[in-house]
Amino acid sequence: MTTTAQQTEAAAAVTTWLAGFSAALAANDPARAAALFTEDCFWRDLISFTWNFRTFEGRAEITRMLEATLSRVQPAGWTVTDGEEPAETGGITEAWINFETSAGRGHGHLRLRGGQCWTLLTTLYELKGYEEPKGLRRPMGAEHGANRDRTTWLEDREYERKKLGITEQPYVLIVGGGQAGIGLAARLRQLSVPTIVIDKRARPGEVWRSRYKSLCLHDPVWYDHMPYLKFPDNWPVFSPKDKIADWLESYTKVMELNYWPSTEATSASYDEASQEWTVNVERDGQAVVLRPKQLVLATGMSGKPNIPSFPGMDKFRGDQHHSSAHPGPDAYRGKRCVVIGSNNSAFDICGALWESGADVTMVQRSSTHIVRSATLMDIGLSALYSEQAVDSGITTEKADLIFASIPYRIMHLFQIPLYDQMRERDKDFYDRLEKAGFDHDWGDDGSGLFMKYLRRGSGYYIDVGSADLVANGDVKLARGQVDHLTEDAVVLTDGTALPADLVVYATGYTSMNGWAADLISTEVADKVGKCWGLGSDTTKDPGPWEGEQRNMWKPTQQEALWFTGGNLHQSRHYSLFLGLQLKARQVGIPTPVYGLQEVHHLS
Amino acid sequence: MTTTAQQTEAAAAVTTWLAGFSAALAANDPARAAALFTEDCFWRDLISFTWNFRTFEGRAEITRMLEATLSRVQPAGWTVTDGEEPAETGGITEAWINFETSAGRGHGHLRLRGGQCWTLLTTLYELKGYEEPKGLRRPMGAEHGANRDRTTWLEDREYERKKLGITEQPYVLIVGGGQAGIGLAARLRQLSVPTIVIDKRARPGEVWRSRYKSLCLHDPVWYDHMPYLKFPDNWPVFSPKDKIADWLESYTKVMELNYWPSTEATSASYDEASQEWTVNVERDGQAVVLRPKQLVLATGMSGKPNIPSFPGMDKFRGDQHHSSAHPGPDAYRGKRCVVIGSNNSAFDICGALWESGADVTMVQRSSTHIVRSATLMDIGLSALYSEQAVDSGITTEKADLIFASIPYRIMHLFQIPLYDQMRERDKDFYDRLEKAGFDHDWGDDGSGLFMKYLRRGSGYYIDVGSADLVANGDVKLARGQVDHLTEDAVVLTDGTALPADLVVYATGYTSMNGWAADLISTEVADKVGKCWGLGSDTTKDPGPWEGEQRNMWKPTQQEALWFTGGNLHQSRHYSLFLGLQLKARQVGIPTPVYGLQEVHHLS
Repeated sequence: MTTTAQQTEAAAAVTTWLAGFSAALAANDPARAAALFTEDCFWRDLISFTWNFRTFEGRAEITRMLEATLSRVQPAGWTVTDGEEPAETGGITEAWINFETSAGRGHGHLRLRGGQCWTLLTTLYELKGYEEPKGLRRPMGAEHGANRDRTTWLEDREYERKKLGITEQPYVLIVGGGQAGIGLAARLRQLSVPTIVIDKRARPGEVWRSRYKSLCLHDPVWYDHMPYLKFPDNWPVFSPKDKIADWLESYTKVMELNYWPSTEATSASYDEASQEWTVNVERDGQAVVLRPKQLVLATGMSGKPNIPSFPGMDKFRGDQHHSSAHPGPDAYRGKRCVVIGSNNSAFDICGALWESGADVTMVQRSSTHIVRSATLMDIGLSALYSEQAVDSGITTEKADLIFASIPYRIMHLFQIPLYDQMRERDKDFYDRLEKAGFDHDWGDDGSGLFMKYLRRGSGYYIDVGSADLVANGDVKLARGQVDHLTEDAVVLTDGTALPADLVVYATGYTSMNGWAADLISTEVADKVGKCWGLGSDTTKDPGPWEGEQRNMWKPTQQEALWFTGGNLHQSRHYSLFLGLQLKARQVGIPTPVYGLQEVHHLS
Repeated sequence: MTTTAQQTEAAAAVTTWLAGFSAALAANDPARAAALFTEDCFWRDLISFTWNFRTFEGRAEITRMLEATLSRVQPAGWTVTDGEEPAETGGITEAWINFETSAGRGHGHLRLRGGQCWTLLTTLYELKGYEEPKGLRRPMGAEHGANRDRTTWLEDREYERKKLGITEQPYVLIVGGGQAGIGLAARLRQLSVPTIVIDKRARPGEVWRSRYKSLCLHDPVWYDHMPYLKFPDNWPVFSPKDKIADWLESYTKVMELNYWPSTEATSASYDEASQEWTVNVERDGQAVVLRPKQLVLATGMSGKPNIPSFPGMDKFRGDQHHSSAHPGPDAYRGKRCVVIGSNNSAFDICGALWESGADVTMVQRSSTHIVRSATLMDIGLSALYSEQAVDSGITTEKADLIFASIPYRIMHLFQIPLYDQMRERDKDFYDRLEKAGFDHDWGDDGSGLFMKYLRRGSGYYIDVGSADLVANGDVKLARGQVDHLTEDAVVLTDGTALPADLVVYATGYTSMNGWAADLISTEVADKVGKCWGLGSDTTKDPGPWEGEQRNMWKPTQQEALWFTGGNLHQSRHYSLFLGLQLKARQVGIPTPVYGLQEVHHLS
């Protein structure tokens, strides 16, 4: 239990540090400010100083950043957040802080060690003069008084619908109407940025509806809220796909988004002179040209199927499709099904096929990391995202910031002990898997699932039951590489032939800049480079170290081209900062980008 | 500012009182329990002791109620609610309390004066063994493990849709799919009570969409939340009608309600022997017979138009319709419009017609009470329902209970000073209205708008601007009774002829038991008697005193027939208790009703 004396001491330490930091910044003295940090310090900034996502490591990097930004940013008003008591645990004092810049208002998080700052997170949450209409600032809805030029809400909505994209151009075009696209669109609507979201499917949510029928979210409800409108208390822990689809469809309507369904972007090009995109779209089969100033690809971090090309695929007589196109098991009762791959989709599909009475073989080509869902919830997530966390005052927004406050460079150190616990708790489970011949790993450095997700976005399965089917042999396991297909079998390099009526390629997805190649050009895709990953120099995430996820939610080497995606947590949280970056550009607030990332990998 | 010593004293007073009360109840000693109340005490019970809505006044009534209920209810576990500090202001100590009964768990509110209880509110919020699946009890959504009989969420929903009302009968049929009907349906779904909501209109929300186009809610957003799913922070203060319609439509889907649109109930009868209703409905033009055990009329407290019959209405050549059927002003530009009535709808419609360039006359037949919207928000509502209230910890749920804790018998005493303030603040406004010849009142006892609403549900206007049009003569005012209509005019009893191309009958609504007469029989409607009102012996609310609103959300003289309605606040809050009454009956928990109301008025 924290005593009052300890609280006072923690508060005093934070106040002292903030005073010193504030004075150094006010004196325009970067070196003095940097000297207030520990040698091994980290400062993560989300757009408040840098108009970028950057993590600075060590005093020298901090000094350089401040030298470049301080006179413009003019940070001030550093205070402990109202109602948030600083607290000390194990020698680390943590505090929530607020501050201002010339452009907006910021929120942050601080960890002190021995009176010096070990980690600092700074984020901008609103732009001065462009505060969102919510809470005390919410719109009136009814315009009181008498006004002969009055229009109704419905008339205004209809007028906007008829006008935007036809006689008036949107400032932002978002390609892709999944959770990332519509969450960002909701942010932009709040910021009065004229925006259209297009999606090739016929209804919002269809991206979920069209997936295999047994699909449920693998992340729990507390992790999955959309911006502004939280799921109700009776929402299931793991949303069934059609239920989340209905939610997204309702969300699109409730948030008054300009959502064009059945609309596909066919090509796009950027004119440097007019600083404008020309995007050709087919809307309900009709050609429409859109000319947005900003283009956001929200087509899915796991959106572009990686379809392998094995010899003989053209000869195979059964059904074959990528996991993203798998319709579910109903047509395959009693059939021989070979699923190539051993990650999330592969397991989900194998499980559902087996349940439907198919004969199922999983082909494991490389090692996979598996964590049981309940274990992951208890050990990996519950401190930040759970009913208990909410009850103890850790709102979704606070959890997001706490998560964001941990520098990527050392995040694995926080993760490894959790996975050690999981390994111990589920020892029997892992023993059985291994006995069945399954090639299991814990990530290159034992840091488990979430680091794999951030580094490579693949290589794991959150077990909701199908792992047992592999462990007990109900789903047959074949290990090795695919050599070729015949008319009715998948043949591995060791000569094993797996007879098949169905082959599912659960072979993952390619980097999001592949979307840019398809839509814009290979040149632009290469200029932008690989999306996702941290440069951790682990499997499928080559170095050099980047410090932030490549190209996500921040400026890229292609002016006016942006990427959003990832899970619901990331889409929710980082859309705030992407929204503010776009708003600042719309209204002409200077947004000099500090430390625009370099490109080291094309995909 | 409350000091810690005062807090401790207040807490001690409450603890002492609860201990004495608890001991008296445990000793099965009603007189001893009643002696702990002040002479002028009130105990309002919402189903926890009485399976009824009842307010007991004075020790004798409390004693009688306890004598009848105590051995069955077995109340116990009286404690101050966790985290809620009792507080004393002006000699009254207030506290939130929890308790249990044999059937369920209760929540309540207590006001002590001089160590005795002045007001007590007891409510049941859940039934033991039938706790709602929310929060920690929320459903998993995904069923983990392997199961060859697995069905998906979508399959389950589709199966239910095909089955309910066709091969399986609902336990509850709700007639009317407005906010009251769907809010109750959401409660019942949470309680696993098979329920169908029917509505004659083609889509959920249509009851709002079909109203005059300028309509916005006159109550603010904080007052209007539906159960379980709150409006987001960016929701307008006053919801435009089409926006609330979209919300209700989404709500119906998100809450997974079995909602039958385009379905009209044509007749209903109750079989005492089988304890079952036979309800004939037309669903998309097809006859369907439903056999629910419980029938709820949610067709609108202000749902059944009161259409006057003036001589000459059949000869009038222009348009004429009740306010509920008014399409809005677009077709009446430049036309002569006479609006009969001077309450909310009349003002809204007059204002919109004037804005569209019509020539408008309002016919005031009796006095009206007007309060300006902003004034009502500031003085009348903000303590419980406002952004400030929410920020200071008064959640919607808490505000509802605080409101419910004030006995109807003395509620006007709380209201009168507020309206005195409003009168003073807007003196100029009222002077101008009076000068224009408008007949204004403050309710029979000066208690203003909300008491008028509770007593008679009519006789007022929340001014959003149209009152000024009357005050300055833009909307012409005629006072008097209508004598007859001619081909092209409305003629008053004083001989004044008001030329008219349009006549709108903004003449209000009749008692909800009129719906029962239409659907079931005059006999049942008369058996049930008048709905709404308190028996306050004021205009349009004849005595004797009832203590609760007649027939609303509680058992009626007709077994298995229930009424819900009213504004969004009432629909939200009281649907909890109506839902629990229905659930208890479904699962066979004994629900002996104490003090079933007698019928004193037929309509």
